[in-house]
Amino acid sequence: MNQDIDQLAINTIRTLSIDAVQKANSGHPGTPMSMAPVAYELWQNHLRYDPADPIWPNRDRFVLSAGHASMLLYSMLFLAGVRKVTEDYEITDEEACSLHEIENFRQLHSRTPGHPEYRWTTGVETTTGPLGQGIATSVGMAIASKWQAATFGEDLFDFNVYALAGDGCLMEGVSHESASLAGHLKLDNLCWLYDNNHITIDGSTSLAYGDDVLSRFEGYGWNVLRVGDANDAGLLSRALDEFEAETGRPTLIVVDSHIGWGSPNKQDTESAHGEPLGPEEVKLTKQAYGWPEDAQFLVPDGVRERFDEVIGARGAAESKAWNEKLAASPHANTVEMMQRRQLPDGWDSAIPSFEADEEKGLATRKASNKVQNAIGEALPWLIAGSADLTDSTSVRLTFDGMENFEPESFAGRQIHYGIREHAAVTACNGMSLSKLRPLWSTYLTFSDYGRPGIRLSALMEIPVIHLFTHDSIGLGEDGPTHQPIEQLASLRALPNLDVIRPGDANETAEAWKLAINRTKDPVALVLTRQNVPVLDRSKYASAEGVQKGGYVLADSEGGDPELILMATGSEVSLAVFAHEKLQEEGIRSRVVSLPCWEIFDRQDKSYRDEVLPPGVTARLAIEEASPLGWERYVGSAGEILAMRTFGQSAPFADVEAEFGFTPEKIAQAAREVVERAAVSPST
Amino acid sequence: MNQDIDQLAINTIRTLSIDAVQKANSGHPGTPMSMAPVAYELWQNHLRYDPADPIWPNRDRFVLSAGHASMLLYSMLFLAGVRKVTEDYEITDEEACSLHEIENFRQLHSRTPGHPEYRWTTGVETTTGPLGQGIATSVGMAIASKWQAATFGEDLFDFNVYALAGDGCLMEGVSHESASLAGHLKLDNLCWLYDNNHITIDGSTSLAYGDDVLSRFEGYGWNVLRVGDANDAGLLSRALDEFEAETGRPTLIVVDSHIGWGSPNKQDTESAHGEPLGPEEVKLTKQAYGWPEDAQFLVPDGVRERFDEVIGARGAAESKAWNEKLAASPHANTVEMMQRRQLPDGWDSAIPSFEADEEKGLATRKASNKVQNAIGEALPWLIAGSADLTDSTSVRLTFDGMENFEPESFAGRQIHYGIREHAAVTACNGMSLSKLRPLWSTYLTFSDYGRPGIRLSALMEIPVIHLFTHDSIGLGEDGPTHQPIEQLASLRALPNLDVIRPGDANETAEAWKLAINRTKDPVALVLTRQNVPVLDRSKYASAEGVQKGGYVLADSEGGDPELILMATGSEVSLAVFAHEKLQEEGIRSRVVSLPCWEIFDRQDKSYRDEVLPPGVTARLAIEEASPLGWERYVGSAGEILAMRTFGQSAPFADVEAEFGFTPEKIAQAAREVVERAAVSPST
Repeated sequence: MNQDIDQLAINTIRTLSIDAVQKANSGHPGTPMSMAPVAYELWQNHLRYDPADPIWPNRDRFVLSAGHASMLLYSMLFLAGVRKVTEDYEITDEEACSLHEIENFRQLHSRTPGHPEYRWTTGVETTTGPLGQGIATSVGMAIASKWQAATFGEDLFDFNVYALAGDGCLMEGVSHESASLAGHLKLDNLCWLYDNNHITIDGSTSLAYGDDVLSRFEGYGWNVLRVGDANDAGLLSRALDEFEAETGRPTLIVVDSHIGWGSPNKQDTESAHGEPLGPEEVKLTKQAYGWPEDAQFLVPDGVRERFDEVIGARGAAESKAWNEKLAASPHANTVEMMQRRQLPDGWDSAIPSFEADEEKGLATRKASNKVQNAIGEALPWLIAGSADLTDSTSVRLTFDGMENFEPESFAGRQIHYGIREHAAVTACNGMSLSKLRPLWSTYLTFSDYGRPGIRLSALMEIPVIHLFTHDSIGLGEDGPTHQPIEQLASLRALPNLDVIRPGDANETAEAWKLAINRTKDPVALVLTRQNVPVLDRSKYASAEGVQKGGYVLADSEGGDPELILMATGSEVSLAVFAHEKLQEEGIRSRVVSLPCWEIFDRQDKSYRDEVLPPGVTARLAIEEASPLGWERYVGSAGEILAMRTFGQSAPFADVEAEFGFTPEKIAQAAREVVERAAVSPST
Repeated sequence: MNQDIDQLAINTIRTLSIDAVQKANSGHPGTPMSMAPVAYELWQNHLRYDPADPIWPNRDRFVLSAGHASMLLYSMLFLAGVRKVTEDYEITDEEACSLHEIENFRQLHSRTPGHPEYRWTTGVETTTGPLGQGIATSVGMAIASKWQAATFGEDLFDFNVYALAGDGCLMEGVSHESASLAGHLKLDNLCWLYDNNHITIDGSTSLAYGDDVLSRFEGYGWNVLRVGDANDAGLLSRALDEFEAETGRPTLIVVDSHIGWGSPNKQDTESAHGEPLGPEEVKLTKQAYGWPEDAQFLVPDGVRERFDEVIGARGAAESKAWNEKLAASPHANTVEMMQRRQLPDGWDSAIPSFEADEEKGLATRKASNKVQNAIGEALPWLIAGSADLTDSTSVRLTFDGMENFEPESFAGRQIHYGIREHAAVTACNGMSLSKLRPLWSTYLTFSDYGRPGIRLSALMEIPVIHLFTHDSIGLGEDGPTHQPIEQLASLRALPNLDVIRPGDANETAEAWKLAINRTKDPVALVLTRQNVPVLDRSKYASAEGVQKGGYVLADSEGGDPELILMATGSEVSLAVFAHEKLQEEGIRSRVVSLPCWEIFDRQDKSYRDEVLPPGVTARLAIEEASPLGWERYVGSAGEILAMRTFGQSAPFADVEAEFGFTPEKIAQAAREVVERAAVSPST
């Protein structure tokens, strides 16, 4: 093939992508074909990246926000020879993405799933596929770079973040939130490459899309550059140089491209987007590339060597120099701990315990703030933030030296995300991927606005803290638009996410320990707006039971229980008060606090049966939320006092009474459960 | 009080809002105080609205997107004398929002909840409070106006839609999707009034927000106007005139304002946003307004009369003239039917039934398309659309005369929403509120992107059709980012939403009948990507059982069942095949298809017990989704074959086998359930 080596490499990316999609008979060839030269130019001549150390902390990040073009990324990982890293951070000699994996694109257990998956394939910086998520996550990575630069020195941290996005990413609402936030924060280390190809699944973008992207992004305070031809490496390189020189603004590079580039019959059509080209068109396209038309998965001699010579050699030198700098730095230990998700000794030593106060009580959001500050002071890379509800959700860091994360104070640890829940959660995903420990907050109902990001934190198994307050109808006057009903069930249905709704201040402290004491998987902390009693732990069981997800908080006197009351959050103390009444009446009741179903379900059967003895079928669950799922614990004979409609706007005590959440009504419901069980003990 | 009557009216709006918030000791006074003159000028001199007929179909819509400023709207409804309308569309002599209701702001059962609620308070055009929802919904209303104009004539329909939004609305991602869509569609009947007050809950907007809104909205193709002072009625009126004269572009009017206007100590501060002013500041503010400082809920003489003279008189004349035009129109009957959510005779007569085809089968999305077209031809105000997945989700209307809804063809019934799920669902909410019957579609996983809008459709009890395909791991190669796990449970947890996952083509037809045959409450239709067998209904029960939510599809031979298999969607036929195996082995099994839990749960107990006899405790549920909630049906002794992790990327048969969803594995799990039940029949 009479092509220069760089062109040969670019065509290798294209043909590997074409062949993999064709063999799988599934996938998206068009964008890898058109954007191959862009990825190649970026990786070879701009990206600071060492294929032999793909977890080098100061590497530039490349995010394929157009995740359906996964073969573009897999081709790069293969050709650049990126090495596989284990879960224990060991760099192996194995390839992260071998030719064999590419030949098994989209097959069971291959390292080349349909969309790039973090943790599953080394070199994938974040999971993408749901559109907009990649660019949104890239903002968090850029924040992490700035924070580490300000905290540890710009000689140690100054990485850039590049994200490749399509029309879909820019149409999604999260692109607005994230771009606006990045512009406000002046993240000049952030560069989005916009593949402007005018085609979506439905056809021409003109069916639905007419944005003047330049005007839009200038409105966000971005630097907007244009590259008129995706095949023009020189133009692109100049634009990337301009990005690197830019200060005070993120950069958007609009790259005009032709989807399915080179395909005689499919270029510039939607059929190149999401379908294999078909055997005939594959041949014609290879002819157009000057490629042997029958060759499959061909990697011409010299191509992988070319990657070794350029990005490999440059990256090796850069990472080596950096590691020497790190070794000489006073921050070496801290950086190392962060990378391995370790915690400083004594991180939990200042966590308060709360004195009993059953009269006035304390909102769990307020208790949470005290705990968060105690931990935050000991864990310097805990980064707090809120979607414009900093004090309402009580996530403000208040100890000495705290400041906002802002362009003038990038070492700040309090982020004001604005009224942008989706940008907040996705930024936290990006920070967590960069090994900070971020938390973000909003009202539980508005977790809905960030659902796609919450899902990705769970899918990526990263330890983001989602903190949601105003957790029930107990928020009162704001009414049904603000009162969550279905959100607890929605979150509990998500794999890998532990949803913790502590019952009082001391359970809140335990919930925080659970949240921090993990190296993977997110948690959702679900907290009250209203005061709830701080239970007297000399009378009731220790809140340490939270560590097991559920525990016997108050037990029957005078014999084994004949009734189990179970509850979470603000309903725990209601259950306790009902229990006291029932005990007086001679009903032997037990109260089980169940702050985290997921953790409780992971306990062994003997513990679970100890807490919820199978023989006690008279059970009543109390939760101011959808009943969905409680049958798991109450069984066929039990009852659930829950919300079966939306809430109402009124002072919280009125709302709770309206829906039956008072000790009196709970006790009454419990009596009925006990009576029924006495009549038919076996059902 | 020595003020002209208009100023007196404006100050009445302000002081009613102040007093109501103060009395409730909860709420948001600042925006009603600053935006009172804007609302007053708009209503009195521009809004085409008849307080005596607040459901007049061609009325202009006023949407308070900044829903926390609800007292602004309640004050307008009260002062303008808006009449209460019943659920049966009868206009009563009662006030929609009396002074008594205002005095009971945010109290239980009052018509003045914390945020404005559609259906609960006449005159509230859409529920708002979750930020961004109002402006997004307004786009759907503007679409409905254009569609009705193009379909019934511009002399009958030409209403404008005004939405009042704050910084929060414009920061939310959905504002981008909706504004971009509105610009693309050239909705020149849409006007957003942006309350540019520089304050959010956290403090100055500069904490998080630096958008150049003019540049941003010009990028969307909007006409952007600026009113430098919210108190300058003349300036505002001129801007509104300009909006009315504008063609081909939506209009954004940026109104500079001072939150908490007139409050000596709280104006321009975040404390005016979401807290009562406090008794002292209330007095000082009233002094500043030239108001009796101790008067509470004062409505000076002449103020309500002024509304009667202006908006009342104008609206009455306009609605009367319109009703005369309608009476003379050939469309009178159709318009009337739409307004009352009635259906044309024979709307369901062409719905196909599908022949048995257990070999090749048919994807339920494909079956759905046939049914949708049969209904669509008979129901001219069914409006289909998709978030860039028109053919993937099979929602294309294909009969003669169908065209896209576009600026040149506003009578089109196919809307290309672009990759904007949130804008799609909220636009559908707006269209449904305007009495069209909209459906929108995306993949089930990406329903997450539209969650806040889905929630509002349920809260408002409007009959939007949410159509979600690619409903499980059965979608195959796209992998875990695209495979829904928690979404079914998330949707089932939402009050008022019926989630229907039909098992084959004929169940799909029945599901559509359920969807269309309702005047309130949304449905979610959940459909497969992959082919599923079309069951032989001469052998198994009729699909009409879907009407009851669940039914016995295949029953045991040779005696009462000893085992119940239950499933939804693509797992129904797997259960049937397993059942056939088990029957051959002599295990008396029953298959229950449970396409809609909510409808099944609404059946009387005798029917539910007939389908799921309490005595049969050996039960196995099969669903390729989170198990959450299935315990309700399988009971303590049953088992759930479900997804407890995220999915995998591979051809669908491989994925289903990997997770145990084959007739063989189902039969094996069923045998174990039966054996266990035989050992301990009572648990």
